[in-house]
Amino acid sequence: MTLTFVLEMLGTAAFAVSGALAAARKGMDIFGFVVLALLPAVAGGTLRDLILDRPVFWVADVRYVSVAMIAAVLVYVTSYEPGGRRQVLVWMDAMGLALFAALGTQVSLLSGAGAVVAIMLGVTTAVAGGMIRDVICNEIPLILRGDIYATAAFAASTVLVIASGVALGERVALTLAVVSGFAVRASAIAFGWSLPHTRRSRTKL
Amino acid sequence: MTLTFVLEMLGTAAFAVSGALAAARKGMDIFGFVVLALLPAVAGGTLRDLILDRPVFWVADVRYVSVAMIAAVLVYVTSYEPGGRRQVLVWMDAMGLALFAALGTQVSLLSGAGAVVAIMLGVTTAVAGGMIRDVICNEIPLILRGDIYATAAFAASTVLVIASGVALGERVALTLAVVSGFAVRASAIAFGWSLPHTRRSRTKL
Amino acid sequence: MTLTFVLEMLGTAAFAVSGALAAARKGMDIFGFVVLALLPAVAGGTLRDLILDRPVFWVADVRYVSVAMIAAVLVYVTSYEPGGRRQVLVWMDAMGLALFAALGTQVSLLSGAGAVVAIMLGVTTAVAGGMIRDVICNEIPLILRGDIYATAAFAASTVLVIASGVALGERVALTLAVVSGFAVRASAIAFGWSLPHTRRSRTKL
Repeated sequence: MTLTFVLEMLGTAAFAVSGALAAARKGMDIFGFVVLALLPAVAGGTLRDLILDRPVFWVADVRYVSVAMIAAVLVYVTSYEPGGRRQVLVWMDAMGLALFAALGTQVSLLSGAGAVVAIMLGVTTAVAGGMIRDVICNEIPLILRGDIYATAAFAASTVLVIASGVALGERVALTLAVVSGFAVRASAIAFGWSLPHTRRSRTKL
Repeated sequence: MTLTFVLEMLGTAAFAVSGALAAARKGMDIFGFVVLALLPAVAGGTLRDLILDRPVFWVADVRYVSVAMIAAVLVYVTSYEPGGRRQVLVWMDAMGLALFAALGTQVSLLSGAGAVVAIMLGVTTAVAGGMIRDVICNEIPLILRGDIYATAAFAASTVLVIASGVALGERVALTLAVVSGFAVRASAIAFGWSLPHTRRSRTKL
Repeated sequence: MTLTFVLEMLGTAAFAVSGALAAARKGMDIFGFVVLALLPAVAGGTLRDLILDRPVFWVADVRYVSVAMIAAVLVYVTSYEPGGRRQVLVWMDAMGLALFAALGTQVSLLSGAGAVVAIMLGVTTAVAGGMIRDVICNEIPLILRGDIYATAAFAASTVLVIASGVALGERVALTLAVVSGFAVRASAIAFGWSLPHTRRSRTKL
């Protein structure tokens, strides 16, 4: 069992929990939980594989979908009321974001993509699922909230490209990238950090 | 003309009508009707074919797109006001849901997918189009309303997998699956059924 | 450098600017700008290439993504306040719409699609990116506003198919199609034109 596979399962579970928590917040039934858990867990990687013209990762290996379904059921049986636990959702999303940005970039590099395209596909893998989850649930997408979201995915992807470029070895590169991306996003959540917005001046164009 | 083809055309027409009715509710013009009719009619199957790496079903056979366009025009010429007919939309969506869940699962099994992945792709085929229609129209997606929506798609897909597994023959399996899925969804609409939600307890986590 | 390539770059830049302006209106940070610029710039063409089973256009050629990123940065550094410039967004979107409808239809014809399917794929290429941009930003999609939006894309695509059919030559066909589509959309914006809506009668069904 490779490090990549373990991280993929972790990312899948984290995004599935975030989707199931979104379903809990909307008071959905068990099948709604399963759909809402699967969407963020597999959407980003599906898009990445389609664009790279690789076989879609979860079609030949039932473990990805199974992990997401188990996560949905676990959240369902521990959900007693629809509100609350927004904070858990945001942290699970942060874990998934860092993991999928690093993994998506690695897969793209291994498929022969150049650095810029690999970073873009890594960011896509990381942000697509959460965007779809939030749009379906009629929540403001986390990426719009301005508190260093896409930035964290770019950090993880860029670290992965650089670490791979200087031949640090796959395991080290992956670990560095995930830790960097998660550190950036976690700091933003914990300390309320944000980059300069455009909402910063008094003059009108 | 196979049973599969007839059911595909029925599902395409039903979803196209649901999309055109959504366009009518938003007061769109004729080309808006065509786009909104095509989206739910082909989006789910397109996603399924991309994921299975099959040729997208409507590219080589112009009849699918044509049926959806004709449905859009028919709804347009019979639409005199933007509100109303929400109930017709919901019933057309129910027909499309049951048909596409069964057909999507069958196609996935025939392409070599395992049972769990085939059910998931069947549900995807069934719910994707309606989700996109509702998100574009800024309506609360039917899947979020909690009244046995994804559940009906799971029912149709699961019946198809079981019926195929016990070798009932393609026509019987398809018919059983469509009837089961539609019966579940229709009962939910007619009698206001729903599964236990998470909005069921007084204790907070 | 072919006319097709120049028009593709123009369309990519126009849609990227429209996405970056949407990011500016939401007060996002620089990485949010980049994501919101890339979405409309590449989403439509990505969908078209996936459906036609061609290599996705921006994976092997980094210039498309680079143009979109540069556009995002330029809009970011010239954005001093989140509101305003909605009109610029609408005009950039109009340019992208006409260009991508014509180019998407041409690519589809060259890939062997029939006339109806080519028009549909051209319209998809043109409207998908803007729809995603508006849905993510929680704006009412331009296609729902009823002022000749999908219509302009259909005009460009249909002119392209007819001009190709009468063998006018690739450059003439492209130019005619882009000019027609843009003229239709520009007139609608400038003069407030719209086709008959369904909101037109006093009788109820």
